[in-house]
Amino acid sequence: MIRHFFAFTAAMVMAAALPFAPARADEVLAGQLPPALQTQLADQYDQVIADLVRITETPAPPFKEDKRAALFAQMLRDAGLADVTIDAEGNVIALRPGREDVPVFVVSAHLDTVFPEGTPITVTRDGDRLLAPGIADDSLGLASILAWARLLEANDISTRQPILFVGTVGEEGAGDLRGVRHLFTSGAYKDRIGAFLSIDGADAARIVHAAVGSRRYRLAFKGPGGHSYGAFGIVNPMAAMAETVRGIYAIEVPSEPKTTYAASLVSGGTSVNSIPDEILLDLDMRSGDPAELIRLEQAVLAAAEAAVAGENAARSVRAGTITLEPQLIGDRPAGSTPADHALVQTALAASRAAGFKARIDDSSTDSNIPMSLGIPALTIGSGAGGGRSHSLDEYLNIPRERFVAGMSVGFAIILAQTGAELR
Amino acid sequence: MIRHFFAFTAAMVMAAALPFAPARADEVLAGQLPPALQTQLADQYDQVIADLVRITETPAPPFKEDKRAALFAQMLRDAGLADVTIDAEGNVIALRPGREDVPVFVVSAHLDTVFPEGTPITVTRDGDRLLAPGIADDSLGLASILAWARLLEANDISTRQPILFVGTVGEEGAGDLRGVRHLFTSGAYKDRIGAFLSIDGADAARIVHAAVGSRRYRLAFKGPGGHSYGAFGIVNPMAAMAETVRGIYAIEVPSEPKTTYAASLVSGGTSVNSIPDEILLDLDMRSGDPAELIRLEQAVLAAAEAAVAGENAARSVRAGTITLEPQLIGDRPAGSTPADHALVQTALAASRAAGFKARIDDSSTDSNIPMSLGIPALTIGSGAGGGRSHSLDEYLNIPRERFVAGMSVGFAIILAQTGAELR
Repeated sequence: MIRHFFAFTAAMVMAAALPFAPARADEVLAGQLPPALQTQLADQYDQVIADLVRITETPAPPFKEDKRAALFAQMLRDAGLADVTIDAEGNVIALRPGREDVPVFVVSAHLDTVFPEGTPITVTRDGDRLLAPGIADDSLGLASILAWARLLEANDISTRQPILFVGTVGEEGAGDLRGVRHLFTSGAYKDRIGAFLSIDGADAARIVHAAVGSRRYRLAFKGPGGHSYGAFGIVNPMAAMAETVRGIYAIEVPSEPKTTYAASLVSGGTSVNSIPDEILLDLDMRSGDPAELIRLEQAVLAAAEAAVAGENAARSVRAGTITLEPQLIGDRPAGSTPADHALVQTALAASRAAGFKARIDDSSTDSNIPMSLGIPALTIGSGAGGGRSHSLDEYLNIPRERFVAGMSVGFAIILAQTGAELR
Repeated sequence: MIRHFFAFTAAMVMAAALPFAPARADEVLAGQLPPALQTQLADQYDQVIADLVRITETPAPPFKEDKRAALFAQMLRDAGLADVTIDAEGNVIALRPGREDVPVFVVSAHLDTVFPEGTPITVTRDGDRLLAPGIADDSLGLASILAWARLLEANDISTRQPILFVGTVGEEGAGDLRGVRHLFTSGAYKDRIGAFLSIDGADAARIVHAAVGSRRYRLAFKGPGGHSYGAFGIVNPMAAMAETVRGIYAIEVPSEPKTTYAASLVSGGTSVNSIPDEILLDLDMRSGDPAELIRLEQAVLAAAEAAVAGENAARSVRAGTITLEPQLIGDRPAGSTPADHALVQTALAASRAAGFKARIDDSSTDSNIPMSLGIPALTIGSGAGGGRSHSLDEYLNIPRERFVAGMSVGFAIILAQTGAELR
């Protein structure tokens, strides 16, 4: 369903009579945009910066993306798209019809941020930097889509494949990919998606073609609790949690495929002079290899069960025993798009043509879902880099030329992959 | 400053002409209340139950005892006491003048509970049990004081020694005895307290004459933190905390003098997909023997240091090392009132006279402060027992006869020790 990269060459040849001059063959082969489109994209710079500020300052905390969704839907309409809706999960969905009735090419960015409700968000500018929580991850993806939609409309570019522009909810953390999951498993287009491109973050050189799978647990260790002095000697869920962490950190994991675990969050207890009755421990496990992930998960749960049994054996259970309640709080499937797939090769060429040292990588993004389903997908950034993602001092580099070059990469991929023709 | 127990006998003899019949000499000697007062106390049963519900359902989380303090102050006024104030620390202070200008006899219960703000607290009744967090520890102490104050007023009983009824703040946990500490070190009565009686919990057979000393720590484990996947392999303060808990729970402590530890509170981490940069662990250590307490403290801190060193050796410190910051958050001095002191002997006699198998014991209570200062003090429960103190399923036994018998014990001690006379 994915058109070969050279489809782009063909499109450009067919576009010779149109307002912008046809690109030279070697540029097109390298994935570069024709100069006229390049110029028009550069002309959008100020508009993109304004869009970035507007999007970023409309908060989208986890599970509360509705305000930003409404804004993004309206901005897509303002960009010229007619068919813009918000689906049952909260995703923004905008269809731009193609010449043929074939599966759609999804171009997606995520609406949500990691920042909780109430986080003050004001965009500030410091020279060639914009600073604000979420400015790069993923306001930039959304703003890039808007710029590309405007250019498609302004130039009346037709594509063979329909394009479905999507703003997803729930990409981050506990959102657990709920937006993209809905898109592929129960949304209106679930069986009509031919390929998927996620624009995420500010690194236009990093082509994520492999999905790191993850399984996340909240382990609740429960016990009778009691007075620290009076009930001394009874089982303590804290000791069971501690032994669990120790057991986990003794697990050997392969470095290739990279497989990781983290005991990341812990809480529990009522007062300093009480034996706690509950300790909660959150765990993150990841691997590019589903089999390794299962092995790790089994080892982690076995460590927890052994720790609980050990605690019940080590101390008195006269007031009650320690119990373990594992709750799966995150489940992101692994998968990949082969490195030699046209979509990946097109992305590498487009990134290199724009002057980036393109490389392939793996990560956990919205693309996990299509990749796990065997649907060609990749995730790439836009713009000219940034940093401190997921922190309050997140920033985005916006030096004009480099920033526009970074924005051209995703657009070049779209044109090539969808069989663009200029009318 | 403490009147001998037999002062009570004298008071009873002088009371012969009063509405209640004088007790038989052997009963008085045994510390029993005169039958008329016993009857009046029994008549208060329903009122005490009602008071218990009202007090318990007015939350008094640590450092936020003000609502319960205001309620208790008003209830003391309703009981007939004129001079009721709330001191600078938040303690409720009610003076009932004596016949002589001598140091006061403090009768105290604590206002605070271990339960954090927002804990749902509704008293339920199950046969001869009342259930609610804090119902016994220490709503019962407060309700007992109210009943006794009502009886003193109703019978116009005069005492040689003034009685200072006190509802203390900060007895539990992190409160670190701040209320009683204020009372003895900077309050208006600080140099005018002759003896101290704390009514705490539901065991009228347990006379706490020795103060268990405690040392409490908050251990901060700090590290570089990072992305759970990207930074996998770096040191994790969670692992150092876990190894510390494990080290502590392997420490051998003597059962006599009873020496205990508890890993009681834990918190830390930023999100499920981050290696945490800080974990906080709260610990409670206690012993009746100051030397054992020091030994335990040294072993605990050594376990934490070994755990941190072990973690820094086990994983990468490329992004930074784990550090340990121990903070002393609680320090309750040990001390005692000699077992042959009149106050202790009076309490033993009163408890036995009420039908309890009285015994002396040690604990960590508001009495730690006066005991450490050499001021005669003891802590005793009221009522007919209970259980699951400091847990959400705390309960109080309220079989009428036994409950009233338990409530008579503290009252008999007060009458004997303050030189009560019936006008």
